[in-house]
This record gives sequence, C-alpha cells and structure tokens, in this order.
Amino acid sequence: MKNSNLTDYPHRRLNILTGEWTLCSPHRTKRPWQGEQSETQEDKRPQYDPQCYLCPGNVRANGERNPDYTSTFVFTNDFSALLEEAPKFDLNEKNLLVAKSQKGICRVVNFSPRHDLTLAEMNTEDIENVISVWQNEFEFLGSKPFIKYVQIFENKGKIMGNSNPHPHCQIWAQEEIPNEPLKELKQFRKYFNKNERTLLQDYLKLELRKKERLVYSNDSFVAVVPFWAVWPYETLIVSRRPISNILQFKKKEKRDFADILKTITTKYDNLFKVSFPYSAGLHQAPTDGREHKEWHFHMHFYPPLLRSATVKKFMVGYEMLAEPQRDITPEYSSEILRKLPAKHYKDMQ
Amino acid sequence: MKNSNLTDYPHRRLNILTGEWTLCSPHRTKRPWQGEQSETQEDKRPQYDPQCYLCPGNVRANGERNPDYTSTFVFTNDFSALLEEAPKFDLNEKNLLVAKSQKGICRVVNFSPRHDLTLAEMNTEDIENVISVWQNEFEFLGSKPFIKYVQIFENKGKIMGNSNPHPHCQIWAQEEIPNEPLKELKQFRKYFNKNERTLLQDYLKLELRKKERLVYSNDSFVAVVPFWAVWPYETLIVSRRPISNILQFKKKEKRDFADILKTITTKYDNLFKVSFPYSAGLHQAPTDGREHKEWHFHMHFYPPLLRSATVKKFMVGYEMLAEPQRDITPEYSSEILRKLPAKHYKDMQ
Ligand SMILES: O=P(O)(O)O[C@H]1O[C@H](CO)[C@@H](O)[C@H](O)[C@H]1O
Ligand SMILES: O=P(O)(O)O[C@H]1O[C@H](CO)[C@@H](O)[C@H](O)[C@H]1O
Repeated sequence: MKNSNLTDYPHRRLNILTGEWTLCSPHRTKRPWQGEQSETQEDKRPQYDPQCYLCPGNVRANGERNPDYTSTFVFTNDFSALLEEAPKFDLNEKNLLVAKSQKGICRVVNFSPRHDLTLAEMNTEDIENVISVWQNEFEFLGSKPFIKYVQIFENKGKIMGNSNPHPHCQIWAQEEIPNEPLKELKQFRKYFNKNERTLLQDYLKLELRKKERLVYSNDSFVAVVPFWAVWPYETLIVSRRPISNILQFKKKEKRDFADILKTITTKYDNLFKVSFPYSAGLHQAPTDGREHKEWHFHMHFYPPLLRSATVKKFMVGYEMLAEPQRDITPEYSSEILRKLPAKHYKDMQ
Repeated sequence: MKNSNLTDYPHRRLNILTGEWTLCSPHRTKRPWQGEQSETQEDKRPQYDPQCYLCPGNVRANGERNPDYTSTFVFTNDFSALLEEAPKFDLNEKNLLVAKSQKGICRVVNFSPRHDLTLAEMNTEDIENVISVWQNEFEFLGSKPFIKYVQIFENKGKIMGNSNPHPHCQIWAQEEIPNEPLKELKQFRKYFNKNERTLLQDYLKLELRKKERLVYSNDSFVAVVPFWAVWPYETLIVSRRPISNILQFKKKEKRDFADILKTITTKYDNLFKVSFPYSAGLHQAPTDGREHKEWHFHMHFYPPLLRSATVKKFMVGYEMLAEPQRDITPEYSSEILRKLPAKHYKDMQ
C-alpha cells in the first residue's frame, strides 16, 4: 500500500476503541466556505467577575454562597442531570419501549479562583491540584456501591455549550456504564483476552515507532492525533504504563500528566491564537468492583474548529445519519500541532 | 411502573434502532441559560439570488453553468467527499491501523428554482417532484454494482453547516454500509428473524395504540417523537406498510409522503416562528443486491433547537464521551408539535 493513497483518496478508517468507522476525504480540503462563522471566543476576562456564579464568595443560582476558595473548589451541580435519591423503576413493553431509572451524582470542579484563566494559562503546580481533585472525586464517587462509572469532562468555550467561562469541569457519576465507554470496554476486553496486553499499549508502541501522528510526549504520557480521529484536531492522551485509572498515578506521572495537559491546551491556543474551544474527558475503567486489567487510561480532546477561529467542522446530515466524515488527514493535523510552540502565544513578545 | 416516573426522574431509554441508550433528565428543564445564542436564521431571501451557485442560470464554483431549470435540478457535487474513480487499497497493521479505500458518488438535488423556498413553503405537488428525483437517484445510484448504500439527507440552516440557503439536499452513495445504517440493519435483522415482522411495524402498532408520542399521521405514514429521541424535537417518520425503500411507494403513498413532509416541516417552522433548522435523512435498505425484508423504510429529523429560535441543545462533553442526554421528555415535545397548526405561520394573518 502506498501511503500516498491515504493522503490523496477517500477512505474509511477504523476506530479501534469503538469498533466504528470514520470517512476521510483528504482531496476535499479546497472547498470554499460561505457558511456559518462562530463568534470568536471572548478572551479578555477580569480576574474576578461579580456576576459569575463560580467565582469565590459569589452566590449561586440556588442561593448558596461559594467560599473564598484560593485553589480548587468542588460542589454538587445545582442543576444535576442525575440525582442520588430517586425511585428505582424498569419499563419494558415488548422490548419496544425500554427504559430504566438511573441514579447518579453530578459535580462541578472549579479549577482556580481566577475567572480569567484556563488550563493552558495555569501553571503545572495548579494543574496538579486539579488532578488531585479528580483523584479524590473519582475515589469518593467510584467507591459508592451504586456508582459503576465516573465521567470527568470539560466543555470549554461557548461553542461547546459552556455557559460560564470560569475555568471548570464537570463529573457525572452513574449506575450504569454509558454507551461510549461500554464500546471501549468491549474492544479492550477482546484485545486483552487474546493478547494479554492492553489494546492501547500495542497501539502506542506502533505510533511511537511510526512517529507520523505524534503531537507531544513526556516520560509518562504520549499525545497523538489518533489514526481514526473524527474532529479536525482531535487528540488522544495515553499513559505509557497500562494503568486503568488516575488513582494509580505515581508522583512523577501526576506531574507529567499536568505537563501534557498544559502543553496540549497551549498548542491548541496557539493554533489560531484564540482560547481554543473543546470538549475533553478522561476515560477510566468502570468502578464496578472488577479489576479491569484490560482498561488502559486515556483522555480524549474533541475540538470543533477546522479552518480558523470562527469556522468549525459541522457534524451534521451525513455524520448523524451515516458516519463521521473529515477532510484534513490526522497525519496533517498532527504535524501542525507538533510544530506549534509549547509556550503560550500570550507569553511571547 | 407509574408513568410519572418517566416525567419526574432521571432515566435511560433504549434506542431500539441502534441498540444504544439516551439519558433523560426531565426534572432539569428549569436551569438558567447564559450560554451561546445562535444567530436567528435569515428568513428573507429573494426568489433569485445572482450570487447563489444553485440558482438557475448561475455559474458554479467549478465554472459550470446551471441550466434554466424550472422544477428540480440534480448534479454531481463539485466538492464530492467520495469519488467514483479512485484506486482500491486496504491497510491493516496488526489490526491497530486499519483503513480501506471507499469509492462513491455525491450528488446535489435542488428542490426548486426558487431561492426563497423550503420544503415547508413548497406545495405538495412540487414536493412530489422532489420525491421523484430521490426515487430516480436511488434507483440509478443503487443499481451500480459497487454501491451498497445510498444516503439521502438535507442539512437545513446555517446552524447545521449548510453553506447555501437555496433549498437542496445531498446524496452520498458508497461502497460499504456506514455505521448508523449498519447498526439499524443488525437490530432489524435480529427482530425480523425472531418475529417475522419488522421491528418498526410492531413499534408503530404500539405507538398508535398509546398515542403519547404521535405528532401527525395520514393514510400511509406516521410521525412520532421516538421513545428514545436524542434531540429535543427529533421526529421519526415511518411508513405504515413495511416497505424497504422509496421505489416501492404506491402512487397514494408518494402523495402522502409529500403531505407528511410538508406538514412536519411546517409544524417545525411554527414552533418558534422561524425557518426551523435540522438535519434530516431517509434510511432505506442497503443496495447490496439482497432482498432486505427486515428493513422498514423511515426518515429521521434531527433539529438542534431547544428553548427558542436562538438556543440550541449542545451535544458536547458528556454526550461525546458517554452518551446523549436530553431534558424535556419525548412525550412533552410530541404534545407541543402535535398541537401546532399544520398551516404555515407565514400564511396566517
Ligand atoms: O457538503 P456541505 O453542505 O458543504 O457540508 C456540510 O455537510 C456535510 C455532510 O453532512 C458535512 O460533512 C459538512 O461538515 C457540512 O458543512
Ligand atoms: O451542564 P452545562 O454545562 O450547563 O451543560 C452543557 O454540558 C452538558 C453535558 O455535556 C450538556 O448536556 C449541555 O447540553 C451543555 O450545555
């Protein structure tokens, strides 16, 4: 197979984590654009905003007052999508109408008292504090007998449905394993049972040898644009060691995770010289009491921007009804990201 | 099971077409919104726009001139995501990097010479002409030996990535069955093999008996907000007769399909009194030469708007990393849509 086929002609690529496909149309990058332009992300914020319900000392929608926190701050979401107390029910009419109750807990984690920061602009010590909160929350929520899965995620930027620019993430913990991690669990299991190594262990080895899709790496983690990436500048952070969750981080790994988080988000900001929007999240093993040797810890970054700070990739008709489609290749995106400085554009003059 | 559980507490609902779940949080509809507001859809367009590359007689991006068409007009996409002529290749490195070439054809179908119309504002005779084009294209593309699946879809509105408001849809036909129809095929097969009736035949019977999620119906088709709907006002149009594609329409069915298309899109426009954005598409049986008795023709409408003409539902962090989540229930949405007039708001004064 000539590799140039992948850069010149339409093809499908297999997502080994989900078992699903992406359509890649590399020849199509020249098409004109007359469609929607998004607002540029507001990038000048005060350190403290009296209107922000996440800033220290301010009153939230439910009337509670935030403490004068100086580092991170965690609380239960005032508008939780999942509730801890709720009746148990099961509905099944002929396997056609099927529903079941779902208990859970939704938390909000403020990364910093500073309203104007983002992970990219925080220092690694402060990012380590955020990781500590993730560890505590994962342990606390995951050890509840009724919680089988804990999803830590960040929606960054208005374009990603974030209604408050104060740096924060969310944690939704629930009774059952949701669709996406369940797909990964199946793929992880199949591979581990056959090979006695994790799927991502072997994938990582191959990517480190090929070097075509690498973005950044340190002693403990590697960031790549995965071979099957759906979003134009999607990245995947994988731990070099096959660990199944962040409680297993060694001291050095925790520091290195902070470093790679800062570096990737900084490269993203540098791409179009804006605070780069994305949804991102950790994929950790289910907290169902099993060992999960097959699960390999990783983090997904799904950023929507395509051509500039205002033109995003739309996942619409064909994508919703058939399968994800992309134009620029993962190899091209990773080269762009790889070459971008690891120093934030705001710090360079 | 008290039905009020479904209106009061978080639960998951099974999508019987894909085998995947949706998280429903009906208690959460009261949350405040400070996030992104989309532009309202531009609703005043001239009948002819000299800048539009889809209007009759105008020159397209590739230099070709459109004919002075008076009804519909079909052509091959100037920036096709799939190509008919391309080398065949297969890449597989240790089942970790897997890709294969994908041949295909992308077509554009202009619904009308009038730049200012939409399906909702066209008359049913003209919509029947559009359906005729879909039939011709499905037959023509589907009968090519290398085409196994034909996806007809419309992206309507800038918010859905549509870069040209001239009423049109696209058709992407390709060598293999993409993810979403493949999931449906598996579910359809499983059900048909067991019950010797199609899955949607029995689902429809149940919905017609319950009447809780009906939106509109005529002699040949029924529109419901499906029990597992992901988008706030998502609908599913199902043929009463278990046919597998639109070539099997009887004369009356074709007229009724035009009628239900006009009615559903009109109700959508009436909801927030704007030209309602959506992605929509037909799901027909694969064109792989098999009979597909298990496949039941249907059409999905995926509209993004939630609270108003400018506030949409964001499918972001939790949705991308875990599973789709919705607040208002399908029963609530269908009641709203059901009660809306079938006459377009622009025609009422
Ligand atoms: O082909 P168009 O209309 O330019 O493009 C639109 O529809 C395509 C198919 O859903 C998407 O891949 C594009 O992201 C979207 O902008
Ligand atoms: O909870 P938030 O930040 O208000 O809401 C945001 O994230 C949620 C989880 O991804 C989504 O369901 C919402 O659509 C989005 O607006």
